[in-house]
Amino acid sequence: MFDTNLVVVGNALTTPEWRRIASSGSLVANFRIASTARRFDRETNRWVDGNNLRVRVTAWRRLAEGIVTSVQVGDPVIVYGRLYTRDWTDDDNKARVSYEMEAFSIGHDLARGRGRFYRNKAVPL
Amino acid sequence: MFDTNLVVVGNALTTPEWRRIASSGSLVANFRIASTARRFDRETNRWVDGNNLRVRVTAWRRLAEGIVTSVQVGDPVIVYGRLYTRDWTDDDNKARVSYEMEAFSIGHDLARGRGRFYRNKAVPL
Amino acid sequence: MFDTNLVVVGNALTTPEWRRIASSGSLVANFRIASTARRFDRETNRWVDGNNLRVRVTAWRRLAEGIVTSVQVGDPVIVYGRLYTRDWTDDDNKARVSYEMEAFSIGHDLARGRGRFYRNKAVPL
Amino acid sequence: MFDTNLVVVGNALTTPEWRRIASSGSLVANFRIASTARRFDRETNRWVDGNNLRVRVTAWRRLAEGIVTSVQVGDPVIVYGRLYTRDWTDDDNKARVSYEMEAFSIGHDLARGRGRFYRNKAVPL
Repeated sequence: MFDTNLVVVGNALTTPEWRRIASSGSLVANFRIASTARRFDRETNRWVDGNNLRVRVTAWRRLAEGIVTSVQVGDPVIVYGRLYTRDWTDDDNKARVSYEMEAFSIGHDLARGRGRFYRNKAVPL
Repeated sequence: MFDTNLVVVGNALTTPEWRRIASSGSLVANFRIASTARRFDRETNRWVDGNNLRVRVTAWRRLAEGIVTSVQVGDPVIVYGRLYTRDWTDDDNKARVSYEMEAFSIGHDLARGRGRFYRNKAVPL
Repeated sequence: MFDTNLVVVGNALTTPEWRRIASSGSLVANFRIASTARRFDRETNRWVDGNNLRVRVTAWRRLAEGIVTSVQVGDPVIVYGRLYTRDWTDDDNKARVSYEMEAFSIGHDLARGRGRFYRNKAVPL
Repeated sequence: MFDTNLVVVGNALTTPEWRRIASSGSLVANFRIASTARRFDRETNRWVDGNNLRVRVTAWRRLAEGIVTSVQVGDPVIVYGRLYTRDWTDDDNKARVSYEMEAFSIGHDLARGRGRFYRNKAVPL
């Protein structure tokens, strides 16, 4: 079967944090994103808040570099990646499940501001 | 902002359960779905299991009817819907978060079997 | 960059046609799908037709088998796959562009009917 | 049924052009985007170009403003929107079909550069 891809349009709940993986030297960055749907309520004839989605985002290598130098808490962003479940055990020894997203592409949402972009030089992969 | 839509291709982990909402008479059904990604491992030159995604699916009205009469545990399915977070408090009074999906459309995956389909009669909405 | 994936919820405009690729013996099937969006018109307080999407769908191997034995013109279906452009030259020697979709998964839409499903026996890939 | 949403990760083939709708005063902008998939070829053990997708993108109001002031030809972008078919007649009086995308959100792809973002002041909608 396939990776489950999704796109989230929302706001950065945290400023991205990063670290370097010791074994490979790869950069990895994490932040949290929230998205609140708006729906038109026909009874009151107004737009109201609908469901909410919050999820932890992981980015690797160049995308990690790009967001660490560009994204701050509160920024409106669009995130495209794959969603998966991570199983873990909490302090009370209970089985727990987290949902995480590995991003392929992240950008500032130009519906909510203007941007200046400095393209990476092309380098051999 | 927008609903966060996603499509999951996987297997029904449970047979759908249903109930009728007392106030509106609407039918609602729930089941769980799991999807395991496969990725090509270049070191061993084989396909191996990648990340896993499990999520609870809710369906309403006609879609609820359709799956209650058609889907069983283990069936290969494709599910399209919107993903959201639900906040709740567990028995130890701790804040917890669940991820759920409200489905718009569900079908048996014809890459993994054959199907017979009996279309609903068109009725005024 | 990545394949551009999309999911289309609509109706089969044609019954799938199939052929076998001479060199590989692989089965390939094609049909066309149409999807019409519905939107709520606040001036008339009614649901009206929105935009329309029609696209040619290609399926390979087992998925081709599954749809050839299961899908007929008019059937409500959900199709998940990747979208791409194909460039060709028409009879007047003009450059033309087609949009096509290679499907990963196709199912009958259980929001619009009931289904019976006969799962393939597991066989080594 | 539903709008058919998709996300395209690619490059701007043109710099956005804009105009103002006389009747409403709304700003609308258009550009074209291309995305080329990369796939791993197991015979040569290399990444090679896969399918290509090119599509015309339309943006309205604030998103139009955002891209007109921010996006230039060649920029790496991520575009999220809905896909639809538009029917028209060419100069030879032949029926033709175009595929277009109305964008909900567009951003520069931070996997391929760094960005500075200037958020719009919140104003009542």
